Amino acid sequence: MFKVPDHQVAGHKAEAGKLGPLVDGSGLFYKPLQGDERGSNEVSFYTSFSSNAKIPKHIARFFPRFHGTQLLEASDGSGLQPHMVLQDLTFGWVNPSVMDIKIGSRTWGHQAPEDYIKKCLKKDRESTSVSLGFRISGLQAFGSKESGFWKPGKLEVKSLSADDVRLYLKRCVSSDVFGSKPDCAFASVVYGGSTGILSQLLELKEWFEDQTIYHFYACSILIMFEKEDVLNGKSSRAEVKLVDFAHVFEGKGVIDHNFLGGLCSLIKVISEILTTPEACVADGLLEDGQESQLGL
Amino acid sequence: MFKVPDHQVAGHKAEAGKLGPLVDGSGLFYKPLQGDERGSNEVSFYTSFSSNAKIPKHIARFFPRFHGTQLLEASDGSGLQPHMVLQDLTFGWVNPSVMDIKIGSRTWGHQAPEDYIKKCLKKDRESTSVSLGFRISGLQAFGSKESGFWKPGKLEVKSLSADDVRLYLKRCVSSDVFGSKPDCAFASVVYGGSTGILSQLLELKEWFEDQTIYHFYACSILIMFEKEDVLNGKSSRAEVKLVDFAHVFEGKGVIDHNFLGGLCSLIKVISEILTTPEACVADGLLEDGQESQLGL
Repeated sequence: MFKVPDHQVAGHKAEAGKLGPLVDGSGLFYKPLQGDERGSNEVSFYTSFSSNAKIPKHIARFFPRFHGTQLLEASDGSGLQPHMVLQDLTFGWVNPSVMDIKIGSRTWGHQAPEDYIKKCLKKDRESTSVSLGFRISGLQAFGSKESGFWKPGKLEVKSLSADDVRLYLKRCVSSDVFGSKPDCAFASVVYGGSTGILSQLLELKEWFEDQTIYHFYACSILIMFEKEDVLNGKSSRAEVKLVDFAHVFEGKGVIDHNFLGGLCSLIKVISEILTTPEACVADGLLEDGQESQLGL
Repeated sequence: MFKVPDHQVAGHKAEAGKLGPLVDGSGLFYKPLQGDERGSNEVSFYTSFSSNAKIPKHIARFFPRFHGTQLLEASDGSGLQPHMVLQDLTFGWVNPSVMDIKIGSRTWGHQAPEDYIKKCLKKDRESTSVSLGFRISGLQAFGSKESGFWKPGKLEVKSLSADDVRLYLKRCVSSDVFGSKPDCAFASVVYGGSTGILSQLLELKEWFEDQTIYHFYACSILIMFEKEDVLNGKSSRAEVKLVDFAHVFEGKGVIDHNFLGGLCSLIKVISEILTTPEACVADGLLEDGQESQLGL
């Protein structure tokens, strides 16, 4: 009855005897609680968030629905373990393209233990988190029935530069997801429009400019869409979701400027793909530069 | 002819034989170039910015006018030294209240030397930069002709908590700047209104959501206003200016999410002072909390 999710693109995976999330094939996603405080902190967040009357409905829809916790036979054979019962976000989707984008230039809360901060800071600096304000944690982009998915490996994703990230966000909405010269053929229908990705990100931004309840560190935005809908001339099903709340802290009256800054940077990148599609074709040629001082 | 500026609230000061900026009493401010690359980098920024046709006029007005560099007898007696010739921002003001607010949760560019990053990160974490996204570097708030200015010392400013910072931003626009129970009597005329501080910050924000030319690390926003105008029933002269560009880097097509996040946080704090003035009175009582995980 329980199985490994088909469309997970980042995080721990329930494969080869490892501990990871499971799905039940009827719309629920079971995420094992991490043993340390991360597990209980994520449960605390879902519990607080799902009962918080101050969250507007149009914002709540960006979060997976939460159905409590449940003891379940863990995927690593360690017996009954507590799992969060969540909405299976890709339930009912056929060949979803999914990008997992970790938001924020900083993935650590400022009261975290020293060694944890050090580890995170290293990852933030080695990835595009510090430069771009976000990083790609994983992705799969559907090509065609024949070619299947483009799904870069963990190591490849880890070493992406800022220009790579922009290129990848273009490739995901291009005719040939495997090629390095994106045509951005589906950008306007997936990223654009009144119900597209950009418009959803702008709704989120408006909330983050105001909300001081939660600070979301190391949280991801999922960008999901069904390419086949686009190919069949149907309007694309495109959704933005937030996941991974093991490092959510109380906002204490301050906005989440770290998340907001990264979100604004993502918005800018996607806006540019929409407004300058002609830049897409030349993009394979861009060289990645180092940050430099201003030359006279 | 040259003298120490009257209204400098942060940074190196030309006092007691030290090196610092000078004013000529007729509208110009002479800032000595720091000996290392910071000096030349700041000159590079001013040169680039003042000749950049892409900077809209309504944004350029937030920056001091630049009149090149000039050799000048340095304030520390070290002889002729190169100085940047800048607009003296408080020229013509009588008793300006000035807040120097360093923007961004991170004051270092990501290609800076390791020891410099370490030093900055420590300061960022010990101040409110990491928590609030900005910190007060210095301030003076005019009380009255009798009482003069409230000007907290360097050490006091250094150790402010997030709640202190919010309190100080209220005290600056209160009847009694020396008391710890602000009434925010002048908040609406200084911070509010179509030409007030908030409205200027929102103009800046709009530009930062889009501009990818420069990244401003360790740059300050000055909030300046003339309290006497308010007391005399004149509409307040209130201005936002940006200063300190020794750590400005090329944006390379990415928005300055670090500055933008901090700016949005400052905007939120000032908006709240305007929308909930009743919170002002109770504010002396707030206790400062630690960041905490979410309790169930």
